[in-house]
Amino acid sequence: MSLIVQKFGGSSVANAERVMNVANRIVETYKAGNSVVVVVSAQGDTTDDLIEKAMEINPKGSKREMDMLLSSGEQISVALLAMAIQKLGYNAVSLTGWQAGFKTNSNYGTAKIDVIQSERVKKELDSNNIVIIAGFQGINKYDDITTLGRGGSDTSAVAIAAALRADLCEIYTDVDGVYTADPRIVPNAKKLDDISYDEMLELASLGANVLHNRSVEMAKKYGVNMVVRSSLNKNEGTVVKEVERVEKLDVRGVARDNDVARIALVNIKDEPGVAFKIFSLLAKNHVNVDIILQSIGREGKKDISFTVTESNLETAIDLLNANKDIIGFEDIKATSEVSKVSIVGAGMVNNPGVAAKMFEALADANINIHMISTSEIKVSVLVNQKNAEKAVAVIHDKFHIA
Amino acid sequence: MSLIVQKFGGSSVANAERVMNVANRIVETYKAGNSVVVVVSAQGDTTDDLIEKAMEINPKGSKREMDMLLSSGEQISVALLAMAIQKLGYNAVSLTGWQAGFKTNSNYGTAKIDVIQSERVKKELDSNNIVIIAGFQGINKYDDITTLGRGGSDTSAVAIAAALRADLCEIYTDVDGVYTADPRIVPNAKKLDDISYDEMLELASLGANVLHNRSVEMAKKYGVNMVVRSSLNKNEGTVVKEVERVEKLDVRGVARDNDVARIALVNIKDEPGVAFKIFSLLAKNHVNVDIILQSIGREGKKDISFTVTESNLETAIDLLNANKDIIGFEDIKATSEVSKVSIVGAGMVNNPGVAAKMFEALADANINIHMISTSEIKVSVLVNQKNAEKAVAVIHDKFHIA
Repeated sequence: MSLIVQKFGGSSVANAERVMNVANRIVETYKAGNSVVVVVSAQGDTTDDLIEKAMEINPKGSKREMDMLLSSGEQISVALLAMAIQKLGYNAVSLTGWQAGFKTNSNYGTAKIDVIQSERVKKELDSNNIVIIAGFQGINKYDDITTLGRGGSDTSAVAIAAALRADLCEIYTDVDGVYTADPRIVPNAKKLDDISYDEMLELASLGANVLHNRSVEMAKKYGVNMVVRSSLNKNEGTVVKEVERVEKLDVRGVARDNDVARIALVNIKDEPGVAFKIFSLLAKNHVNVDIILQSIGREGKKDISFTVTESNLETAIDLLNANKDIIGFEDIKATSEVSKVSIVGAGMVNNPGVAAKMFEALADANINIHMISTSEIKVSVLVNQKNAEKAVAVIHDKFHIA
Repeated sequence: MSLIVQKFGGSSVANAERVMNVANRIVETYKAGNSVVVVVSAQGDTTDDLIEKAMEINPKGSKREMDMLLSSGEQISVALLAMAIQKLGYNAVSLTGWQAGFKTNSNYGTAKIDVIQSERVKKELDSNNIVIIAGFQGINKYDDITTLGRGGSDTSAVAIAAALRADLCEIYTDVDGVYTADPRIVPNAKKLDDISYDEMLELASLGANVLHNRSVEMAKKYGVNMVVRSSLNKNEGTVVKEVERVEKLDVRGVARDNDVARIALVNIKDEPGVAFKIFSLLAKNHVNVDIILQSIGREGKKDISFTVTESNLETAIDLLNANKDIIGFEDIKATSEVSKVSIVGAGMVNNPGVAAKMFEALADANINIHMISTSEIKVSVLVNQKNAEKAVAVIHDKFHIA
């Protein structure tokens, strides 16, 4: 008998029929002799609908109230899913984030889990209940409800799997697993049987859109075995686990991320401390910066370009303009018409020809590269958004991936 | 400076515009120098919509899950209302039932409040916050969410007013106050300036539809001054408080309740203990019985008739049939085509002619009376539902009420 955590996203429980399908899936796992803990997101468009309600009343309401509002979405889906399992004749109990012991810090909207006090969940499992937990949410030390932000339900699932030392954490989604590239762009993309945490991390943060990197980071930290699989069929999915590193080059996938905007600060004074001023200002205001590129100084001036997510673009520009004199730049140029395209794979750092091969594929396709970033297991380039799909396809071809 | 509790029902916060109206009303009270605690119901049809979602999946899901589901409705409305107040530039904080310290027993769906641990609410008031509390809900000793059932939000408001020793508990509704009869039936019905708890209790339980009797009982027990007033205008409303009893007859109002069904058990053995068997059986199964009428025994047989709410009719019949041999009756007859019409007023007990005058009015209008029930401050009759409105009108006329 194993302890299995299953996570279902909002589209998997969008209506009564789908809720019943998910309930059947859960009951199958339970009937096979496993203990089952389920983490669920809010139904379909519920979260968006709630945000719209809030925006209509006050676009600048406090984040605390926004979390109070949004957390009701998962409360609805867990109760309905528990009722669906009861309908099938099995015992189920739903728990909110706070009932399940998810203690977080107080960063409303983007809260981090501090600890999970899992006594209640264990007690329900001991009573042979299937336990349905509201994903995406927790409670801070003031007993106020918090939400975990993007990818929150995946994170909830991995966190409870870690806390319970579950044998497996299954992330159900609408694709069969992790592919070498987006199958909608690259028809001959292949599903990977397994992938290492680090490779998955790069793919997740690079826009593969299957798992959020927070959940993968947590899975890596606590050694949680994850499986990404489809809620629509019984295919095996992709296992995410610690994989032995090999010397041989092994490009595992090509990813694209359209949620990127580029900001260029033009004609900054070329003096020590400028980069520090810019990036500490942004960090203090929770604007994450990805690729950074600095031009070589000339005549006492230089340019600094960097990328942020599109949702942070306005905030970043406002912050920079408000501190124009302190930083000392002449002009800001910004665009969100760019995409990041990346190849990911262990062993890349030992194969210096990989980046060159990628650039060759892009050059052959006449695609201009704006920025380049490399790490031990990835090479990313920034290209015009209109070229991004083509870039993914030609790179995938070039490497004969999988 | 006073501490005022204000309660707004679901229709008062049904959409963004109404939420802003309510926010303005609250802020006015706050600006006048008062501390304000607000209790809110779920928006408009939210509760019905949630029930429908549940029914689609499992009409017999556990009550615990139903409470988990339904309590999300108030969580949405409190967050939105807090944001609306913030929009007006004032500090507001929303609290769920459990955050506000509403500890209840474990009767899911019809939970009773055991105690309110009001430290959190007091702390928020001390911080000059307007406190918005989710009505209708609480938490039991297992940390599971409960709901209070019909009239729950009114009860929540009176309970927190009692716990905080508030100066006033204002119940906002869509009518101007308590009337001598339903103005839709009796055009010359008049609004009462004040009414005693006992009179209000009779009117509430008799279907005046303004306040639920649980809230009035609690207000009486803890001496909470209530005002029933309209959220649509600034009229004074009706004060519900301890009123000096006077000897003089004072019929305060005529009420009608259509949510009544009559059950008749025919040809029961006329022996001691039969009534006990019937009514303890029903009580054990939470079926409340109102008027009871027992025929005089003849030839060792008698009939017992009584009324229940329409929602309890099926349960009651099933229970009685299942125990037919133990109780020993021959047949059950039941109808929900009846209404209870009542007059209420202190001093009635000392004026024996009151009931006769009421019966005269009905006789003059050719309305047949099925059952009669009297108490210190009311006389109720059961009539055919189709005659109920006419009965209210002719009785109101007969007594020249108000």
